[in-house]
Amino acid sequence: MALTLTPLRGIPLIQPGDDLPTMINAALAETELKLQDGDILVLAQKIVSKAEGRLVNLTTVTPGDRAMGYAEVTGKDPRLLELILSESRKVLRTREGLIIVEHNLGFVSANAGIDHSNVSGDWGDPEDWVLLLPEDPDRSSASIRSALEDTCGCRLGVLIIDSHGRAWRNGTVGTTIGLSGLPGLVDLRGESDLFNYHLRATLVGAADELAAAASLMMGQAAEATPVVHVRGFPYALREGGLQELLRPEERDLFR
Amino acid sequence: MALTLTPLRGIPLIQPGDDLPTMINAALAETELKLQDGDILVLAQKIVSKAEGRLVNLTTVTPGDRAMGYAEVTGKDPRLLELILSESRKVLRTREGLIIVEHNLGFVSANAGIDHSNVSGDWGDPEDWVLLLPEDPDRSSASIRSALEDTCGCRLGVLIIDSHGRAWRNGTVGTTIGLSGLPGLVDLRGESDLFNYHLRATLVGAADELAAAASLMMGQAAEATPVVHVRGFPYALREGGLQELLRPEERDLFR
Repeated sequence: MALTLTPLRGIPLIQPGDDLPTMINAALAETELKLQDGDILVLAQKIVSKAEGRLVNLTTVTPGDRAMGYAEVTGKDPRLLELILSESRKVLRTREGLIIVEHNLGFVSANAGIDHSNVSGDWGDPEDWVLLLPEDPDRSSASIRSALEDTCGCRLGVLIIDSHGRAWRNGTVGTTIGLSGLPGLVDLRGESDLFNYHLRATLVGAADELAAAASLMMGQAAEATPVVHVRGFPYALREGGLQELLRPEERDLFR
Repeated sequence: MALTLTPLRGIPLIQPGDDLPTMINAALAETELKLQDGDILVLAQKIVSKAEGRLVNLTTVTPGDRAMGYAEVTGKDPRLLELILSESRKVLRTREGLIIVEHNLGFVSANAGIDHSNVSGDWGDPEDWVLLLPEDPDRSSASIRSALEDTCGCRLGVLIIDSHGRAWRNGTVGTTIGLSGLPGLVDLRGESDLFNYHLRATLVGAADELAAAASLMMGQAAEATPVVHVRGFPYALREGGLQELLRPEERDLFR
């Protein structure tokens, strides 16, 4: 059995208030794909955030003292920093051009996931618009999944991903920020290996592996293919959530 | 265009000295796949290490003082720690049951990638055998690629992966330890976005995204499908190497 990832054709530029499930169903038809039990749809964070109206115009933001302080360290726009701080629990690292935080949602990311590219609101200078992450990506996933399941009458998974940098390694990789209907982690502990005398001690970050896979097919420079259809995910679907994938600070040696 | 990942059927348990390209060609035939230009083969580290004879019996290892010290902190076998230290440049973190190092090859991993499961030599207690990583996984990739390209007369990529833990997040993900014939990183900087007024600042860890994707299809508990065939990788193939993916310590905020 193969794993097949197909970017959907024909997803238009998303506007606030757009109904993503309807657009995904249209794009599935255009791509000549018919949903079936066990399929997963992977969505770029950006289209979910836009549909949910998470655009902010920087001219409406007044930076506070903390933001002004981080602006000196990082050289970033203090209004952007004000938004980053309001989206974060904690600042982990800063240097020129970089701020890495623990997001309110619990994961670690640069700029609290706030994005500047492929973004514009409907007034003022397009350069002033930025996009926050969805308020609750697990909830967004569940809602999109429910609408798609209603249409197809089948059991699906929905995964929302963003591109994250990593400790130790160069390059961003697609990473889970929300999910519904599939496992975040898969616990292989207790399964014996081929020689039957070891018990494995492995927790697999299955949703993040799928996030990385789908990210490959999304095209990064343009927002061309923000939805990827997945068939052949090898683990059993179940209810899941972002929290599974987040290591609590007290168990993290690198925070 | 879709990305398709197919685990190869019929790869036997690998023994030291086995010729992997021959076995992969047989497995491709059994899986009814014919290689073509642009295909990539992703190999689990374990079969490459075994073929290269990287098995070590712990009864042949004499732990030194440093290993004895780390044994007290971690509770791990001091002979295993001696091997971990000899495979590493630097110990980054330790605690009960855990040692995270900078491997001689440059990446950060637990236990220097030394593996205990699905491993046995041909004498003594099977529990005493462990498996080191390949000595030079880029070189191993290049050699396997060259043999496969000779047989098929087409242009391929070869990627060797291992399961790595991560900072901040639970669960292991497939991660590149060696490659040949494909990009480690893809530089999207300078490509404009859909609105044509932002230039992206994104370096994509493309090989690591593919490593994670392939890992999904390898089956973790048993060494059942250690080779995955990939068709539809979306970036142009070129020469590449592990070094692209490794952030130098002086530019790393989390080491």
